[in-house]
Amino acid sequence: MGKTLTEKLIAAHLVSGSMEPGAEVALRIDQTLTQDATGTMAYLEFESMGIDRVRTKRSVAYIDHNTLQSGFENADDHRYIQSVAAKHGIWFSRPGNGICHQVHLERFGVPGQTLIGSDSHTPTGGGIGMLAFGAGGMDVAVAMGGGAYYITMPKVIKVELTGALRPFVTAKDISLEVLRLLSVKGGVGHVMEWGGPGIAGLSVPERATITNMGTELGATTSIFPSDEVTRAFLRAQGREANFTPLSADPDAAYDRIIHIDLDTLEPLIACPHMPDKVVPVRSLKGVKVDQVCVGSCTNSSLYDLLKTAAMLKGRTVAPSVSMSVSPGSRQVLTMLANCGALSDILVSGARLLECACGPCIGMGFSPNSGGVSLRTFNRNFEGRSGTADAKVYLVSPETAVAAALTGEITDPRDLGLDALHVDLPDRFLIDDSAVLAPASPEEAAHLDVLRGPNIKEFPQGKPVGDAITAKLTLKVGDNITTDHIMPAGSKILPYRSNIPKLSEFCFAVCDKEFAQNAKAAGETILVGGSNYGQGSSREHAALVPLYLGVRAVIAKSFARIHAANLINAGILPLTFANPDDYDALTQGETLTLTGIDAGLDSGTMTLHAGNREIPVCGSFTKRQAAMLRAGGLLNYTKEGND
Amino acid sequence: MGKTLTEKLIAAHLVSGSMEPGAEVALRIDQTLTQDATGTMAYLEFESMGIDRVRTKRSVAYIDHNTLQSGFENADDHRYIQSVAAKHGIWFSRPGNGICHQVHLERFGVPGQTLIGSDSHTPTGGGIGMLAFGAGGMDVAVAMGGGAYYITMPKVIKVELTGALRPFVTAKDISLEVLRLLSVKGGVGHVMEWGGPGIAGLSVPERATITNMGTELGATTSIFPSDEVTRAFLRAQGREANFTPLSADPDAAYDRIIHIDLDTLEPLIACPHMPDKVVPVRSLKGVKVDQVCVGSCTNSSLYDLLKTAAMLKGRTVAPSVSMSVSPGSRQVLTMLANCGALSDILVSGARLLECACGPCIGMGFSPNSGGVSLRTFNRNFEGRSGTADAKVYLVSPETAVAAALTGEITDPRDLGLDALHVDLPDRFLIDDSAVLAPASPEEAAHLDVLRGPNIKEFPQGKPVGDAITAKLTLKVGDNITTDHIMPAGSKILPYRSNIPKLSEFCFAVCDKEFAQNAKAAGETILVGGSNYGQGSSREHAALVPLYLGVRAVIAKSFARIHAANLINAGILPLTFANPDDYDALTQGETLTLTGIDAGLDSGTMTLHAGNREIPVCGSFTKRQAAMLRAGGLLNYTKEGND
Repeated sequence: MGKTLTEKLIAAHLVSGSMEPGAEVALRIDQTLTQDATGTMAYLEFESMGIDRVRTKRSVAYIDHNTLQSGFENADDHRYIQSVAAKHGIWFSRPGNGICHQVHLERFGVPGQTLIGSDSHTPTGGGIGMLAFGAGGMDVAVAMGGGAYYITMPKVIKVELTGALRPFVTAKDISLEVLRLLSVKGGVGHVMEWGGPGIAGLSVPERATITNMGTELGATTSIFPSDEVTRAFLRAQGREANFTPLSADPDAAYDRIIHIDLDTLEPLIACPHMPDKVVPVRSLKGVKVDQVCVGSCTNSSLYDLLKTAAMLKGRTVAPSVSMSVSPGSRQVLTMLANCGALSDILVSGARLLECACGPCIGMGFSPNSGGVSLRTFNRNFEGRSGTADAKVYLVSPETAVAAALTGEITDPRDLGLDALHVDLPDRFLIDDSAVLAPASPEEAAHLDVLRGPNIKEFPQGKPVGDAITAKLTLKVGDNITTDHIMPAGSKILPYRSNIPKLSEFCFAVCDKEFAQNAKAAGETILVGGSNYGQGSSREHAALVPLYLGVRAVIAKSFARIHAANLINAGILPLTFANPDDYDALTQGETLTLTGIDAGLDSGTMTLHAGNREIPVCGSFTKRQAAMLRAGGLLNYTKEGND
Repeated sequence: MGKTLTEKLIAAHLVSGSMEPGAEVALRIDQTLTQDATGTMAYLEFESMGIDRVRTKRSVAYIDHNTLQSGFENADDHRYIQSVAAKHGIWFSRPGNGICHQVHLERFGVPGQTLIGSDSHTPTGGGIGMLAFGAGGMDVAVAMGGGAYYITMPKVIKVELTGALRPFVTAKDISLEVLRLLSVKGGVGHVMEWGGPGIAGLSVPERATITNMGTELGATTSIFPSDEVTRAFLRAQGREANFTPLSADPDAAYDRIIHIDLDTLEPLIACPHMPDKVVPVRSLKGVKVDQVCVGSCTNSSLYDLLKTAAMLKGRTVAPSVSMSVSPGSRQVLTMLANCGALSDILVSGARLLECACGPCIGMGFSPNSGGVSLRTFNRNFEGRSGTADAKVYLVSPETAVAAALTGEITDPRDLGLDALHVDLPDRFLIDDSAVLAPASPEEAAHLDVLRGPNIKEFPQGKPVGDAITAKLTLKVGDNITTDHIMPAGSKILPYRSNIPKLSEFCFAVCDKEFAQNAKAAGETILVGGSNYGQGSSREHAALVPLYLGVRAVIAKSFARIHAANLINAGILPLTFANPDDYDALTQGETLTLTGIDAGLDSGTMTLHAGNREIPVCGSFTKRQAAMLRAGGLLNYTKEGND
């Protein structure tokens, strides 16, 4: 029987483990990337490992999150990352050079290689056939040091596309359709493998929009074949030598196949506050819009912005709408300027923001109170925009511009415009001068790493032991995101390298007193519902609880990356054997967890709440059990394990 | 005897008063402008006056300060200003359209007209022969209502320019030379009138740099004649009809004449932390630079940025330097994009920020800890950059780029480049679609003003009475700026329409406990040194002390706009009859001020400190005395006075 593309690439990078779904496999990692909000911690961790130079084929440090620089913290972090990168063999993409995923796709991604990045949207690289995973910073640090990356062998869902997109229906709408079908939990444990005759009509930027949004499904990653479309893109980037054709075998077996006929799709919109609350744009026709944002790693390519410019050309943004455009990279912005499209955007009244994540992570451009914001981004979690009561909708660039022009939610097909015809260039404008090469090993020995006062040590995990008695300081419901656990936004992100300061904001969305209560309790067990820890890859959502004394999280189910981050931090992620036991626990009570050491192997432990004994489960690989016994991945690695 | 240009324009706008230096004159105001950080308060004040529609020839509301939008506050303020502008006959320049002074110069300024703006750099308009003053928001509100603007009749200093600037020596260096000669107090009570054969070689953007920087001299305003250079600029802006030739009479008498031979000037630099700490750039050769910023209302014109682009073209910003470029307006940015200069800037590695004040007001792009930042701005006050220990230097764009390329302070003449030849276009790109016209009076009646929860009422002044007993809660030294009194920066500016919140930060640079202590004291008298209140025009530096119970400020001397703002707020600005008495006062003691009512007319009052009686002086016009008796300008205006 033939193999899926996922199986082929995993097999080609397998270090250890059996490729049975559910088993742990260790993968050799070719490339890593970091962004600055998770990168400082990843490099502090890498430094603590005592390795001189990264052992990957290419590691790149991007600055795209903390770019507003309100205070010294951001600039200090940028300097720290620049200096640590130069010293240890890592390429450094300067602030303003663009969003990590967009730049990596343009300049560094290689079909068939593995990539892990300390950002949950790293699967964007799957748009050119990379096997790319979002991971915790600690995993990235280990991979930079030459260690393997461990995942649970995923199942594979094939999304089979037929037909072709009609005018004003886009790759974003394909992603939203899949979210509508599968929900934000639908991809958990799976790789989304895209194929079928319909993919030939999708350009690399469109494919990258789709693999980017796959993260919102909870998928392990998403991947497209590497084909002639891929070759043309790499050739236009001056990188045809990086091209390898890659595809699944025709007779590959999938765990599930989803068919989508592109001809039948229409413009879709995800409603507040979850990416899977998807309805047709026309069903919301006439809803008044206050703000429109085009950009983010989902929709900031040259292709996206040329379409945006074409729709704005000669028209004016409605007076009631504030519209922003954030190009994904310096390459995109420069090419927009050179071809006149930037002029069309500017004259329309849209605001041009820096080439960075910007509003997508609440880093500026927060909406007005209670404002309706249409965004071409990937997440619309409550409060993520920086305005607690804003109502954020996710849309394609075309739907975004339609709203900007009319002042209300509008299906772009109803504008009466001619279909857009945007061709990607045969040759992109190539200038990598804003990506600094690392120092040679000889020079590196003499380089200092620059640490500003915002850069504090990270908290140290401790062995889980055999029993834990701790307070149930906080009990939360279903679908808690890492934005709930460790909020981001422009006021908090500058402290990403300062865990003590950051801890003041932990779970503040759910309970303003949590940090204080957890500190007072000394040790804490958290209780959550299903899909606990969905959203971004931020390991801060594990490190900050660690700092506050969290020893275990007991939930109905976990999002993949977050569970791994908890284990890396030495915190136990456990599930209820009987989910109804969730209801029996009361915030504030004292819990005792016993049978931990045996349970790391057997998979069951016992939670004592008053007189009640509640069975809880932990499914750990041997390596994870050893990590938890050691007090987390760093301790485990320092003990000489791989 | 002939008249100065200042005298001619004052005479043409005189409502009342005698044009004797030192006397109060009331001027008819043709135009007003506001920016958003002072504008919300100005419009709240205007609304409280109960006037339907502005009575000026043109009033424009700009959004250029609070543009980062970290949270709902900024967007709410923008909407408030947009809606109040539409309702009351004010033009609204949308966020992203540019810095008020740059846009006003390009699109709205008219030679010979009077302009007041709630921003201290409003004298920029003097670059095209406007009589333009920075004023408190309350003064702007009164002027919008058709009331006069009151100033002390200034003396006039002529700056006589001969010769021509040599390559890489700029208008900025002329400004710095005058600051070196006169100091930040040197212009107090004076208008700087520029003339001589040397001005013919200065373009309007260069003249505007000079009038802009005149604010740093403490000058009442600065003005250039309106000549063929002015006509050419207005023609290229499609506004030749606004041109009027204006100049001083050849035999005009000046209070002082300063001669500057442009041929002898060299590149200059103002050292931390005052704009008058000026030395030759070469004297600091080799100082390592961390950051370079080009932009602000001083140096963000198309002319400035074309020079910047020409120097950056084909070169790369040094790896150790983070460089930003903030164009002054959408017109500038669009033209840069269309001519390819933007591409040259982007490819060099410089970061493009939004068309706004940005780093100049600490609104983002703060330097690293202890960082050296070279900026083409007008102020380098301590902490203003957002990084408390940063070292900020003021330079020309040419000197800024030289440092960006070399990584250290460098005289641009030492780069060995050919002289720059930059021509301004015969026709600027004209598109005013981002400036929204006000509603017609009929439409306006039906418009709502949109108030977000960040917009709070302003504090009400109370009559000064005849005696005040209050605590000396804070005693400060010389050259206290409005940035000390009411800090700005990205974390504080969003609260400019929320005085209670803002008050937490009042004087925090000098004394973190001040706000708390002042509230506890109930009523406060402040004591300051000389040049108290220099810097920006922000009336918040009076309104917030008012809110905290400050009744009087006793200093060695005051900056003009701040003293006026204190009076507008109903706070007494008094000076020591004998400056040595400053030394006799101790923070924390209780003071009693007596003889206030008579002293408002006679000019002397008595301060009782323990057993000592200290004579203090207040030089108030009849109108100011009446305002203080009424408890400030708004009470005075509401009582039906002009």
